[in-house]
Amino acid sequence: MTRPAKIGAEAALRQLPDWTAVEGGRDAIARTFRFADFNAAFGFMTRVALMAEKLDHHPEWFNVYNRVEVTLATHDADGVTELDVKLARFMDACAKEAAK
Amino acid sequence: MTRPAKIGAEAALRQLPDWTAVEGGRDAIARTFRFADFNAAFGFMTRVALMAEKLDHHPEWFNVYNRVEVTLATHDADGVTELDVKLARFMDACAKEAAK
Repeated sequence: MTRPAKIGAEAALRQLPDWTAVEGGRDAIARTFRFADFNAAFGFMTRVALMAEKLDHHPEWFNVYNRVEVTLATHDADGVTELDVKLARFMDACAKEAAK
Repeated sequence: MTRPAKIGAEAALRQLPDWTAVEGGRDAIARTFRFADFNAAFGFMTRVALMAEKLDHHPEWFNVYNRVEVTLATHDADGVTELDVKLARFMDACAKEAAK
């Protein structure tokens, strides 16, 4: 599978209003998700993990109880690609459904 | 359920040879686990998540691809308790099984 080319955090963020640029000069995007409890947070992580395997594109993420802090970038492209936008959109949709 | 009392990182580490004390003055223990790939890493996390819910005691953890960095402490006790030792032992056992 051909890996997508770098589009950069700035271009990605124009399509992802809930995400921010990662500080420190790294081309990556981040979002912190909060859920009702650990069950909901890990349920979200499990849905994302299945999609990550399908895309062969994995997040960097930190979890404590109901909070999930995500960073996305494409290692091979040394920055943000459409693959990150795709995974970010999926996470946004999962979080929205979890909040219903 | 009565929450266990603080035993401290030092006492916990005597029972957990693969774990280390967290730097920066916080009473907590840490271990970095490495697996074959994301599938194995997230499989480990899922087993631990089920146990965490059963114990009502949750880890702080960071994952990127095949690596899982875990920090354990008991918030209510402001330090390491037997509950952390219990969860650490379970993680050690899961990681050992995953490495078979």
